[in-house]
Amino acid sequence: MSWITFKMWVPLKLFVAIWLLAQGACDAWGYEDNEISSCSLSNDLIKEIEDYAPIVHNIINMTVNGTYKRSTWQELSTFVDKFGARPSGSQVLEDSIQYMLNRSLNVNLENVHGENATVPHWVRGSESATLLEPRKKDIALLGLGYSVGTDADGITADVIVVQSFAELKTRAKEVSGKIVVYNQKFVSYGETVKYRSKGATEAAKHGAVAALIRSVTPFSLYTPHTGMMSYGENITKIPAACITVEDATLLNRMADRGERIRLNLKMEAQSYPDKISRNVIAEIVGVEKPNKTVVISGHIDSWDVGQGAMDDGGGAFISWNSLAILKSLNLRPKRTIRAILWTAEEMGIVGARQYIQEHRAEQSNLQFVMESDMGTFEPVGLDVTAPVEVMCILKKVMSLLTPLGDMKLRSPAEGPDIEDWINAGVPGASLWNKNSKYFWYHHTNADTMLVENPDALDMNTALFAAVSYVVADLSYDFPHLK
Amino acid sequence: MSWITFKMWVPLKLFVAIWLLAQGACDAWGYEDNEISSCSLSNDLIKEIEDYAPIVHNIINMTVNGTYKRSTWQELSTFVDKFGARPSGSQVLEDSIQYMLNRSLNVNLENVHGENATVPHWVRGSESATLLEPRKKDIALLGLGYSVGTDADGITADVIVVQSFAELKTRAKEVSGKIVVYNQKFVSYGETVKYRSKGATEAAKHGAVAALIRSVTPFSLYTPHTGMMSYGENITKIPAACITVEDATLLNRMADRGERIRLNLKMEAQSYPDKISRNVIAEIVGVEKPNKTVVISGHIDSWDVGQGAMDDGGGAFISWNSLAILKSLNLRPKRTIRAILWTAEEMGIVGARQYIQEHRAEQSNLQFVMESDMGTFEPVGLDVTAPVEVMCILKKVMSLLTPLGDMKLRSPAEGPDIEDWINAGVPGASLWNKNSKYFWYHHTNADTMLVENPDALDMNTALFAAVSYVVADLSYDFPHLK
Repeated sequence: MSWITFKMWVPLKLFVAIWLLAQGACDAWGYEDNEISSCSLSNDLIKEIEDYAPIVHNIINMTVNGTYKRSTWQELSTFVDKFGARPSGSQVLEDSIQYMLNRSLNVNLENVHGENATVPHWVRGSESATLLEPRKKDIALLGLGYSVGTDADGITADVIVVQSFAELKTRAKEVSGKIVVYNQKFVSYGETVKYRSKGATEAAKHGAVAALIRSVTPFSLYTPHTGMMSYGENITKIPAACITVEDATLLNRMADRGERIRLNLKMEAQSYPDKISRNVIAEIVGVEKPNKTVVISGHIDSWDVGQGAMDDGGGAFISWNSLAILKSLNLRPKRTIRAILWTAEEMGIVGARQYIQEHRAEQSNLQFVMESDMGTFEPVGLDVTAPVEVMCILKKVMSLLTPLGDMKLRSPAEGPDIEDWINAGVPGASLWNKNSKYFWYHHTNADTMLVENPDALDMNTALFAAVSYVVADLSYDFPHLK
Repeated sequence: MSWITFKMWVPLKLFVAIWLLAQGACDAWGYEDNEISSCSLSNDLIKEIEDYAPIVHNIINMTVNGTYKRSTWQELSTFVDKFGARPSGSQVLEDSIQYMLNRSLNVNLENVHGENATVPHWVRGSESATLLEPRKKDIALLGLGYSVGTDADGITADVIVVQSFAELKTRAKEVSGKIVVYNQKFVSYGETVKYRSKGATEAAKHGAVAALIRSVTPFSLYTPHTGMMSYGENITKIPAACITVEDATLLNRMADRGERIRLNLKMEAQSYPDKISRNVIAEIVGVEKPNKTVVISGHIDSWDVGQGAMDDGGGAFISWNSLAILKSLNLRPKRTIRAILWTAEEMGIVGARQYIQEHRAEQSNLQFVMESDMGTFEPVGLDVTAPVEVMCILKKVMSLLTPLGDMKLRSPAEGPDIEDWINAGVPGASLWNKNSKYFWYHHTNADTMLVENPDALDMNTALFAAVSYVVADLSYDFPHLK
């Protein structure tokens, strides 16, 4: 997922909180399912949901123990091993999209097509940083998405190390002509990522010539992390890259000793004209209400490092393979289930925003939207943003999933690509999973198939398949939040 | 520490076991101190040891809470930040040795001098591996110590992936002209490192042109590990490097799919004529028996990646700073305490072997030899190889260390640099610490100050200072094992 998610959740959460207060429905928005205390589903609806137990258990059993065991891992590993990293604007991303369109046809999915989206084309090129003083040393780095590059000789300048934007401001007079190194503490991704996204702009305001930001991670094995950044308006664009926690702390210690630190930074990074990419669409068309739709989704693009197996290969493939399994099991619900593999999420939720905008007219037909983009480790349940009635139905649906363990609900949903829908009131959910190590791998060369566990992928696939099927087949149309 | 340690412990353990059976003293060699069940120290000796409690508590208190709190971390970080990696044969290693000689003089240590040792001079140079088929991809690697290089164009060849030497043998006819990739499972360092040390030789026997070995580690963030290898006699020397767990498993999956794998490997690695290096010696000369000596030690050299802060900066500095603290506290024991910072351990225990050989004549004067080279995480106690009487004394000494926790004894000692002494019967100990993540960092760019915790360093320093002081001051001369 991209940084924008976190940036956007602050106002969204505020909005949701205010809305809930207005509705007097706060009691339905606890962080654990046992806090949904005011459910009063009709006996008919309870019975209807309970009657899905045999189908749900078959979906789970076939996915976790039966014919489809390890199939998500197989599909995902074949895909990411074949294509590797799939950055926005690249031919390899388009090839991987074409592959998934073909694969969708091969497994008889319906309405298989790509929908065009205009996407950015930023290319890293080669890059290097070399500490020149107090001693010579290579500094591992990863340039940040949208960063400008340097000229061929690079930028050679003295370094100032700061630990916060506050310190940068206090020492503003020392910054001009220097490379600013941010050695900010890792608090949480949501809190700390601002240094990656805004570090260059804040440094440039005081005349810095480049910004090197400590990678946003709680753990490092000399692991640089990339990610998106953006430039403020009317601010000089200076090159920005992340360095390792190890080197950021080393430079900080050198600075604390009063040593002069001098560094050469070379980056070929460049933005090229936009390209046309595609969101991948595949469906099982509903038998009674084909225009009513449940969406299951993840993004197909990745950063240009690693394999994008975790971010977001896992999410894309539990979504896509859920649909393939339902199709293979000849399960056709009343409503349509649509798998979407979003393009260019990493460069700013680009594919999803265009798709959602272009499909505003049909938005009221969306029954439920699901996304997985925070890891596909062992599942815990779903993060949901929805009206209380929907929460209550989902709670009952989750009780059918006991073969997967005690699957829980929590609020709110956390999906970047479905965010615009959630903001518009569409009921939605993201995968809640045991992702405590997610940011160890995030946006690094370590985002490979080794992160993905076949059994966890099976469980997540079963969860997505079962929930999407039941929600798509229920007699009850989900209300929207506004 | 280097791989040879583990290779050598098998015959050593066997020898020790046979010796013990012969002595009928097996009951004294348990793995926990409470298994030393047959101790019968004289009341005088018990009283003598107990009387050290105030001195020991002062050493611990001053090191962990007082004047010297964080001093080991300060000394170590100043050192490794200044010099970085310190490979055998390099000028930077010699500079770092000179620095420690000067630093030893600065803190008034005695008999400060270097003792020459002839050391290997292997230089990595630049190196790269590029997957050419089934798709183009950079493969991170670290060439192995003593490996030959390639010519400037590198080696371009098909790849065969095997998971074991047994599989290599079974598929021997497929190997000729190929690059062998070993994707062996990680069992333990001692068990698995044979692929790194012998992989090239075994592959060359069947006509392979290069060997790429999965890094020997239980955990990776796309982290290549280096280390030593050796060539068998009369075997063609082929280039050898470690690749990441991620890439070894990727190549294995590609091979499993029947894909042709083609790779280009470039390595400038080269061995140059030996150089003269120095073991660093510093002492507090004993007041009653100056020729009788307790040694505390770690190695000053490192691999040419990372900072060598863990391997073995931590071990070297808890040893050296123990002596500096005892000196600063004006504690002069009956016997001499000698700190030794060994040179060129990583290239085959080179400095220590020469030192020990050259000092065979005085070997009988060694009271006790200590080493730390398996991490300086939180201490657990000591790994000891010694006669039962010495074990019993040490058990009593450890009971004085309660301010550090419940410090334990275990057998045998595990130190590469003191190995020749242990083999010769000198009583010795290595630091036992909570090093479960040691091999995550071992021989990588991630071996930096971030691995080292100031409080753990203080505790380990206090442990080494207290034990070495008491053992050097006791009335009792330790017997040797033979």
